[in-house]
This record gives sequence, structure tokens and C-alpha cells, in this order.
Amino acid sequence: MKNVAVKNIERPSQAIASGLGELGVATVHEAQEREGLLKPYMRPIFPGSRVGGSAVTVLAQPGDNWMLHVAIELCQPGDILVVACTTDNGDGMFGDLLATSAKARGVKALIIDAGCRDVRDLKGMNFPVWSRKISAKGTVKNTLGAVNVPVVCAGQLIFPGDVVVADDDGVVVVRRAQSKLVLEAGIARELHEEEKRRKLDSGVLGLDLYDMRPRLDSAGFKYVDSLDDIENL
Amino acid sequence: MKNVAVKNIERPSQAIASGLGELGVATVHEAQEREGLLKPYMRPIFPGSRVGGSAVTVLAQPGDNWMLHVAIELCQPGDILVVACTTDNGDGMFGDLLATSAKARGVKALIIDAGCRDVRDLKGMNFPVWSRKISAKGTVKNTLGAVNVPVVCAGQLIFPGDVVVADDDGVVVVRRAQSKLVLEAGIARELHEEEKRRKLDSGVLGLDLYDMRPRLDSAGFKYVDSLDDIENL
Amino acid sequence: MKNVAVKNIERPSQAIASGLGELGVATVHEAQEREGLLKPYMRPIFPGSRVGGSAVTVLAQPGDNWMLHVAIELCQPGDILVVACTTDNGDGMFGDLLATSAKARGVKALIIDAGCRDVRDLKGMNFPVWSRKISAKGTVKNTLGAVNVPVVCAGQLIFPGDVVVADDDGVVVVRRAQSKLVLEAGIARELHEEEKRRKLDSGVLGLDLYDMRPRLDSAGFKYVDSLDDIENL
Amino acid sequence: MKNVAVKNIERPSQAIASGLGELGVATVHEAQEREGLLKPYMRPIFPGSRVGGSAVTVLAQPGDNWMLHVAIELCQPGDILVVACTTDNGDGMFGDLLATSAKARGVKALIIDAGCRDVRDLKGMNFPVWSRKISAKGTVKNTLGAVNVPVVCAGQLIFPGDVVVADDDGVVVVRRAQSKLVLEAGIARELHEEEKRRKLDSGVLGLDLYDMRPRLDSAGFKYVDSLDDIENL
Amino acid sequence: MKNVAVKNIERPSQAIASGLGELGVATVHEAQEREGLLKPYMRPIFPGSRVGGSAVTVLAQPGDNWMLHVAIELCQPGDILVVACTTDNGDGMFGDLLATSAKARGVKALIIDAGCRDVRDLKGMNFPVWSRKISAKGTVKNTLGAVNVPVVCAGQLIFPGDVVVADDDGVVVVRRAQSKLVLEAGIARELHEEEKRRKLDSGVLGLDLYDMRPRLDSAGFKYVDSLDDIENL
Amino acid sequence: MKNVAVKNIERPSQAIASGLGELGVATVHEAQEREGLLKPYMRPIFPGSRVGGSAVTVLAQPGDNWMLHVAIELCQPGDILVVACTTDNGDGMFGDLLATSAKARGVKALIIDAGCRDVRDLKGMNFPVWSRKISAKGTVKNTLGAVNVPVVCAGQLIFPGDVVVADDDGVVVVRRAQSKLVLEAGIARELHEEEKRRKLDSGVLGLDLYDMRPRLDSAGFKYVDSLDDIENL
Repeated sequence: MKNVAVKNIERPSQAIASGLGELGVATVHEAQEREGLLKPYMRPIFPGSRVGGSAVTVLAQPGDNWMLHVAIELCQPGDILVVACTTDNGDGMFGDLLATSAKARGVKALIIDAGCRDVRDLKGMNFPVWSRKISAKGTVKNTLGAVNVPVVCAGQLIFPGDVVVADDDGVVVVRRAQSKLVLEAGIARELHEEEKRRKLDSGVLGLDLYDMRPRLDSAGFKYVDSLDDIENL
Repeated sequence: MKNVAVKNIERPSQAIASGLGELGVATVHEAQEREGLLKPYMRPIFPGSRVGGSAVTVLAQPGDNWMLHVAIELCQPGDILVVACTTDNGDGMFGDLLATSAKARGVKALIIDAGCRDVRDLKGMNFPVWSRKISAKGTVKNTLGAVNVPVVCAGQLIFPGDVVVADDDGVVVVRRAQSKLVLEAGIARELHEEEKRRKLDSGVLGLDLYDMRPRLDSAGFKYVDSLDDIENL
Repeated sequence: MKNVAVKNIERPSQAIASGLGELGVATVHEAQEREGLLKPYMRPIFPGSRVGGSAVTVLAQPGDNWMLHVAIELCQPGDILVVACTTDNGDGMFGDLLATSAKARGVKALIIDAGCRDVRDLKGMNFPVWSRKISAKGTVKNTLGAVNVPVVCAGQLIFPGDVVVADDDGVVVVRRAQSKLVLEAGIARELHEEEKRRKLDSGVLGLDLYDMRPRLDSAGFKYVDSLDDIENL
Repeated sequence: MKNVAVKNIERPSQAIASGLGELGVATVHEAQEREGLLKPYMRPIFPGSRVGGSAVTVLAQPGDNWMLHVAIELCQPGDILVVACTTDNGDGMFGDLLATSAKARGVKALIIDAGCRDVRDLKGMNFPVWSRKISAKGTVKNTLGAVNVPVVCAGQLIFPGDVVVADDDGVVVVRRAQSKLVLEAGIARELHEEEKRRKLDSGVLGLDLYDMRPRLDSAGFKYVDSLDDIENL
Repeated sequence: MKNVAVKNIERPSQAIASGLGELGVATVHEAQEREGLLKPYMRPIFPGSRVGGSAVTVLAQPGDNWMLHVAIELCQPGDILVVACTTDNGDGMFGDLLATSAKARGVKALIIDAGCRDVRDLKGMNFPVWSRKISAKGTVKNTLGAVNVPVVCAGQLIFPGDVVVADDDGVVVVRRAQSKLVLEAGIARELHEEEKRRKLDSGVLGLDLYDMRPRLDSAGFKYVDSLDDIENL
Repeated sequence: MKNVAVKNIERPSQAIASGLGELGVATVHEAQEREGLLKPYMRPIFPGSRVGGSAVTVLAQPGDNWMLHVAIELCQPGDILVVACTTDNGDGMFGDLLATSAKARGVKALIIDAGCRDVRDLKGMNFPVWSRKISAKGTVKNTLGAVNVPVVCAGQLIFPGDVVVADDDGVVVVRRAQSKLVLEAGIARELHEEEKRRKLDSGVLGLDLYDMRPRLDSAGFKYVDSLDDIENL
């Protein structure tokens, strides 16, 4: 690994990042053809937040949060810190002091494929975090990593400046270059879904709305009157 | 697997199913001699719900929610959708559109041995879900499964028309034929527990209330004054 | 295993135990040089509690809560029940009746390396529990264990009379003999952190506050202007 | 749970059970339309065995192997012991003494959704075991369960007298009433596969052998010359 | 944590440690009343070894094997290295170079609650290892830990100079002060088991050998002729 | 996701790929500065293999192996199939028929972040596989994925034409463009290690060989004579 920090990265427009944040994870994931979802072990430390922002990436070592301090200096308002780790680790690399510092820089949230602590304080500050673990185990500042390089975080490749969206459903990443298109596709999708939602709410069945009956039939699906009609169940 | 949907199933009375729901999972589990509990990895996606209803069962393929659409047509008010999967899978098979459709049919809840998404919307609709995972990963509609056949869901055999009860403690299934007896046993148990609760609250010890001292003694249990009294600790 | 209960144990002062509880897990863990943290799979069954108390320890058998009844008789106001198990087990060893009894004795909380049930009732009673699992699976009272002996609970050695502190970050144990020193160190730490928090909040960077720049430099860490400046990334 | 042992069960013919054993798990699973596979956490304690036999079922309590002793009396030559547990448990319920006793009764193998010990001895005796865990943790004989009742073992419903097949791929169950048909289907499948294997070995592609090209095409699958030909990768 | 190495520890006699090793894990665990078993996730990296030796303990940091080098200097012939970690970590802290060094000091084996690598070389050298993980991920030498202090390794408290026994069933620890008694109890147990093994091999049932029938009966266990005899199964 | 197969990819020289294979995973991982290691859950289905080859990448859907058939046509002698999946899935996507076909094309091995079956046959054919799971659960051919696009497999980004190395320690990926340099660095490292191995074997300590004593001292590490010399242990 190169032990390096990249000072200048290109960022998406804040309007696009926030717009994607408002759409939420499930819609954005669909809008970009089901790309970019982080593993579902990434969970919010408290429910109810929904954010979108520009990624500042960190590659940390297990039990070591040195690189997070380096990263915060490189953050700008609207950024989201994205921390990957060189191995599976759940130590509490981030707590209320780092959150205070991050917030002072305008950072909107933390996505960390490791642990987080001071949950009560972070909730009090309304600083949202998605992590693989909650742990009070503190960390050292002894081994170098990298900042603002491409990382694989919870199974997804993330570049600095990518848009990251997170809510109660998890976390999804959108490439900066595609973020405008994805936002438009997401908005279109939402309008379309609103229409579908209204129909379903009125009692129309998905079977009819999506015209599934012929395909079920041609695939060999059968309806029977009762369990007794099935041989060799 | 037979790719089939059973149209007509026998259901328990709604009064019984709701009554069991009010008793809650722990009481119902005890009332039927500790049968029928689903694996504890089944967790509510938001806390505080308690329901009882009649199972409409689904056997789905990994990453595929085609059969859920088939199932919703066969639901009636008071039903609970119970989804098993042919393999371990956590994809988000169910979201706000399916919930809208299910709610329009009077479905009370979803129990799914797979994933769920749109958590924020589902909470907003107050549509309770118990799942093994939360994931925004969408699914396809390409491979057949079955509806209203017996399934093993989270380690328990469930028949269509069984009563399913769920709350913050998890999920339990009660055979339709036994549901009335279990309800009666549960109510009796609750009355009995109320009495015990009152005594314990007043300071009576479980050791005395359940007359455990003689059995402890005959099993060889010893009391000592201090740790120093134990040899070869 | 000796099947024994120790009647008399030394306890810390309640003021110290409560004081440690107010500091919370992360601060206490740091204040005692990062000793004593239980594995992070120990989670609160509902969020928002913070407690400190004196441990009454239990060694239970899988699926068996007999020893909890023995333990409650030996509890005093301000105690915290700490339950270890001879093997990995998540059965619901503790529910609302035991909680009623424990509360009647003045017990403040339960820490259990197994399962817990009646979550809704426990939340209603505001009786906090940290457990490895939530499960309605009830237990028997058939096999002996031990009470008030040293146990390994979720990876930590705990003696009866140790101080146990728990909050949303997890659970930490402090030896009774060191509890006063740890409390003092924790309070000192908190004052010190308050100062740091103020500086970070005003925009001072951790890099400067902790004087990290020279060490980064001597460890070989490099800053580059852009990703293009990195060879063989 | 009824605490009961069923003395008389119907068994499949030994020729059929052994025949299914020779086909192996993957073939049998396919031959019965992909029904009956136990969860893949069930692994052999040593590699290389392949067996088929008639199930004698046990429902055990966690940490308790009392029911295994009851079951062995009810075993006949050619049987396979199948042990389910009322909760997730990995204790070593079975070791060289029980294996000696089982072998003396003609039992061919053990399938246990819990733990096993004395691995070295079992390998020396060539008594194959599929378990979820290896653990030296011994068990007690204190709590009743059941023998020769239907059980859910590692996610599959198993009746006494069902055929159980196990090898390095895992474990599959076949209903007794269908065992002859499944054996025939499996043999047919094997012959058919032999033919396919020969063609594939000679260099024929699966794409052609299974005529997949038109379906790929109609589903919208594209071939491109190089990565550079993909927009917005 | 104190960052310290203890130079002088008391060791058990090599005859006792080796004798316990020959008995194996399951027998030793039983012989000391089921105390001291490490969590079953500790598995041999290759099958077939069985050892007993005196523990030299290490407390390591995640991703850091500095302390192993310190520990090897303090090893003597017949010792077993026992490595605990301050958090869950599976990095490859030990490989063929450390094994060469350890072997040169007469170390018999490694027990590590973390990862190990160079499995092929270690097998070639016949240096047995029990670990929680196999991983080629290398480690740094940046953060201090401790050597020859009491540690909790895979759930068990281990003192330097304790006897550690390991085989295909897992790992067990015996206190040095009790090692002679446990050895005697283990040998007695083995003789006793030999007698039982002979009887079971000749067809005597455990039900009779352990006189279980009256206890089954008094506990309410019933035998029925067939499944049809069970109501409300 | 684009549903596409890339026909032409650049490959490393076979001599380099094989050379890296001979070095093995741990050496290669170190030689490229600890980059590229797949998650350690990727394990060989039988021990003792060591391979290096050029990656043909596959992105599959859960429970669906359609894309593997597409991929095999694009394989050349010396290739290694690398299969990623859009979600966590352990179904048996690969068995003896696909292995026969792959072998006929000269494919050396399979790396699959999903399941594999026919373990016995694959071992008999000496076709090595590294997978996250072994499962007889068969798959369908219903949903499109992609072939020879960049994938994240078990936590690592892999491009078609990258060198993949696998042995009993796991799996590592080397970028094609760097493969020659990494091979040279690996060979140099091996020579250097041979020298160290000889010294350690002769009894030289790592503490001296790596000159660790001054750094231990300056970091504050202490040696004491006995446990009694440690206050507040």
C-alpha cells in the first residue's frame, strides 16, 4: 500500500449529492441498475437519518485511527467520511471528539467498515454513522494507511468524490461522473412508483399491474384448489 | 419442488389469532409446551409491534420475489405473509410497494426469512416486518417457487392457515387445530403469572415461590461464606 | 465446576459504582488503560440506558436458568447481575418475572452472555439488559452451576464485587480494588476531553492538537496533489 | 413438546437407501427436484465418506444427550441417527462411547445439528459424522426430549424412516414413500450426465450442449470486443 | 494494560504435561469437571496432532505480532505459545519464520486466538497450530502488548505455566497446581471408559449400563408403539 | 449492471503467472506491499494445491450459474475462473460437469465467492477450488450477469487478466501490469527469508535478528522477574 494522502479531489455538486440523499438508498440503487450497494452488515447506529454527500476515503489499519485525523483536514462541507480497513476489524475508531472535529469541518456523516463508539453522544449531536460494529475499544495511531485513494469498503469500490447515500436501508455509492444521470433516473423512478403505489393502494394486484399472469403460466406455474390436490407434496 | 399455488386454505378464527397476538410470543411459546419458535435471528425492523394472524406461506428463490406477488392475491384481511427461501439469502424481497399492496388486502404483517427494504416507509405506514436482514438489494421475478404449501421458515415448519404471532421477542407459530387450546392455556398462564408477579414484586424469592431449596440441596448444591472457602477454585 | 454459591462478597461503594456508571463505558475503558471491555456482541435490548453497579456473578448451563434464582437471593440494592454460560447459548434465561424479582431486591441491571425475553415488558419496567441475543426460548431448572464465583463473561474475567458499567457502547468491568482510582482517572479524562472538544469544535485540527505532523512525516507519509501523482496505484 | 419415543417406524428397503447413498448428495438432491437439502453448515468431521440409510430421529435439549441413549436402543442395522436440537447448540453430544454402542447396533452414521467430539477416535473407527460443530464440551442427561418424532434438523423436516444421504457435499433427506422413485430418477440422471460429461470433456461447450445462445440473445446479453467498448462501466 | 514481560514463571513437570497431552482434550476436560475448554472456533490448521505443554502467554494487539518475538525468547523446550488478542482479529500473526524460531527453542505448538499463515510449511515442519482463522494477511510490530501475564484466550483464563492440551477436538487448559490430580483422574477415567467401551461394543445398551430406565420413567418419559399414538403431535 | 461479456482481454505471460503461483499467497502478498488479499473466508475445498493463473472474471446472480457457461467459452489454457456474486450466496454454482468443461479448456482453478459442489469428484479430478461455502444446492440459469468485467470478489477488486494466486493460505490478486515486478520482488524476498530462516533455525532470536530491543525499550516495554512484581495486574 502507498502511504499517501491525496489533497485535491473532484467533487460532485452539492445539489446532486443532496438530491440523491433525499431519494434514499433503495431508489438510488434501482436508479443505477442495482450497482453500488455496500454489504448489508453496514447499519446505522441510530435510526431515521438519510444523507447524501461526497466521499473522502480512508484506508485504515485494524485498531488504528491515525488516518482519520489526516482525512478530516481534507474534508469540506458536504463531505461524507468513508473508512475501509485492511482487514476485518470492529474497534471503535471514531467517537465524539472526532465527530466534533468532523462536524466543525461540515462533514455530514461517517461510513465505517469497522467500529464506532460514543453512540449516545453522536446521537445527541445528530451526527449519523453507519458501521459494521459498535465497540468502546479504542484505537492507537501507530501504523500508516492512506487517504483519498480508491478503497473497497464493505464490498464496494469507492473513489474519493463519489456520491455516498445512506439511510435505514444501508449505504450505496454512485460514481461522480454518473451522479447527475442517476439523480434524474431516480426522480423519474419515484414519480413512476407514486403512480404504481396509488394503484396498488386502490386494490390493483401486482399480478395485473405488472402483467405477470401469462409469464407464470408459460413457466409452468399451476394453481390448485387445495393442498390435497398436490401429489407427492 | 412443485411450482404451485394453493388457492383455498382453512384459516383460524380471527378472534383466536388476534387473541394469541395479544398474549405475545413468550407466553404463547410457553402455552404450547415450547413448540414452534422461529430462530432468534428473525428480528423486527422497528420495535414495539405485536401481532397475530393466519399464515399465507411462500417459498421463494434467492434474490427473487416473484412468488410474493402471487401470494398477495391469495391473502385475506387478518393474514400474515410468511416467506421462506430455498437457501440462505438476505436480499430485499419486500418494500413499500408490496407493503402498500399487502395492506390494501388487509395483510397485518410480514415474516420473511430473507431481507426487507424501505424500512423508513414501512415504519411510516406502520406495517410491521420480521426479517433476517435489512437490505436495499432488489430482486428479480425469474424463477418459480410455491405459495400456500408447508414451508420451513427460520427453522420451523409452518402450514398455510397456521397462526403466527410476532413481537419484540421474535416469532412463534401455532397449529390452526390447536390454536384455541393454546389461547386458553395462554390466558390461564397469564393469570397465573400475574399472581406470581405480585408475590415476586413484594419480595418473595423465586427460590421459595417455586420451592427450589430442597432440590438444590439434594442435587448437591452448596453455600459457602466466602470465596476463600472454595478449594481448587 | 464446583456447584456452589458464595454468600458474602465485598462490594465497592455505591457512590463509586454510580460515578463510574455516569462516566460511561468508553471513558471508563480508557481510564483504566483499555482493560476490561466485554465482546461487542453484548448489546442493550433497548437504547439509552447507562448504569454502574456491583457484580453478582452467575455461571449457568445452556438452556437452564436455575442459578439465576439462586443469585437473586444474594443480591443487594445497587447490584448488577452478570451471567456467564458454560457454552455459547442464546436461550431466553431472563424475562419479566425474574426482572420483577430482581427489581424488588434493588438490582439495577442484567448483563447476560446468553438470551433474554419479554423485551417489551422489560422496557416498560425500565429494567436495562445487555445480552448476546433476544429469544423467547424458555429454559429449564435442571442442571447446577455456580453463583458469585469468578466467571469469564463475553471474553472478560469478572469477579463478584467488581464494578460493571454498561451503556449504548457496550459493557466494561472494573476491579473493585481499582475502582476508586479509575473513577478519578475517568473524571480527569473527562475534564481534559472537554477542553479538547472545545478546541476541535472551534476548528482546530486533531493533526495540530495532537501534534501529529512530524510523526507522520518521519514515518514516511506523503501528501500528493492528485490521484494522478501516484504511480502503480 | 411430547416427551416420547416411538418404538415402531416404517423403514425403506436397505437396497434403496444404500443405492441413494451411492448416488451421493448432489445427484439425489437434483433427482428429487431440489428438495430436502440440509443447511450447508452441516459438515463431515473427516472427508471422504458417503452413506445412505434410514433415519432414526432425536430431538435433544441444548447440552443434553439423554435422548441419544434412548434412540440407540431403537436403531437397527442400516439406520442413521439424526439429531435435532431445540435451540442452536454446538456441545459435544456424541463421542467414541456412543459411537461404539451405535456401531454395535449397526448404525451407519450420525447427522447432528449440534456438536461432536472424539474426532480422532471416530475417524479411527471409520464412523462418519456430519455436525454443525466439533466441541469437547460434554453434556448432561437431565432434560427430556423425544425420539422418532418428526424433527426439523438444519432447516429440513425429517420423519423417522426417511432416507438420509450424506457425503462431502452435505446432507439430503428423501421421503420414504418417494425413495424408490428418487433412486430411479437419480440413476437415470447419472447416465445422462455421463453422456454430457463425455461431450464436455471432448471440448463441446455448455453454451452449445444446452443451447443457451438464443436465450442469452433474447434476454439482451451482449458480447463486446474489449472493456473499452463499455460505456459507463 | 501493563506493557510488560514476565521472565520467570513456574512450569509443570514435562511428564505431567505430556501425559495430559496423551489423554487428549475430551478426557482431560471431563477429568477436571468440565472446566477450561476454549471456544470451539479454535481449530487445528491440519488434522491429527495431539499435544500437551506449558503455556507461555502473549497478549497481542490486532494486526501486530511484536509480542510474539518477545515471547519466543522466554520459551523453553516443552512450552506451548498461547496468544490472546485485545480484540477479535484473524490476521496471520504467525508463519514459517516464527515457527522455525519457536521450534529451535523447543516450543511444541501454538494456540492463537487470531490468524496463522504458511499452513503448507507448518504442516511440512509438523508444527501444530490451533487458530481462529487462516489468513495470509501479515502484521506489523508497532504496538506493545504483554508476555507471560494472565490472558483470556478464546473465552478461557490462562496463566503462564498452565498446562495446555490440544487435539482435533479443540483446546483445554489445566491449572498447573491441579495438573497432577487431573492427570491421575484422567488416567482413571480412561481405564473406566475402556471397560464401558468393551460392554457397549458387545451390545449392552447405555440405557442399561447407566441404569437410565427408572429415571426416564420417573421423569415422565413415555414409549408408544407408533406415531399414530401421539395426539396433537 | 451491464449484461455483457468482453471477448478479448490482455493476459499476463504464463511464466509470470506460474512463477507467482510457485511463490504462494503469503510471499506474493508481502512482495506487493500487502495489497490484494481476498477475505479469509475463501478456503480450498481440499488441502495442498498451489496455483497461479490469469483471471477470467464472472459476476453472477444468487442461485444462478448461467454466466459460468458464458465464461468458459472465453477461457484459455492457464486461466483461473474468478466468480463474484451480486449478494452473499453459498449455492453450489459449480460441480463436476462445469469442472470437466473448464479442464477441457485448460482452466487451472476456480475462485468463487459463493458455493461449490461435487467435492469428491473435483478432488478426484484434481481440479482445485477456493470457495466461501460447500453446498449441493443447485442453481438455475435465469438471470443475466456479466463476464470479464472488473468485479469485487471476497473484498478485492479484480480485473480480467489480473494474476490470481491461491494456496492453503487463501487467495491473492496481482495487477497484470505489476506482475513482473511482484514476481521479482517475491523471488528476492524468498532468498532473503531463506537466510533469516537459517539463522532462526540455529537459535538466533527475532529480537536480535530484527534489532527490536532498543525500540521495545524506547516504547516503554518493561521486563520483570515475576508476576508478583506487577502492581494492579
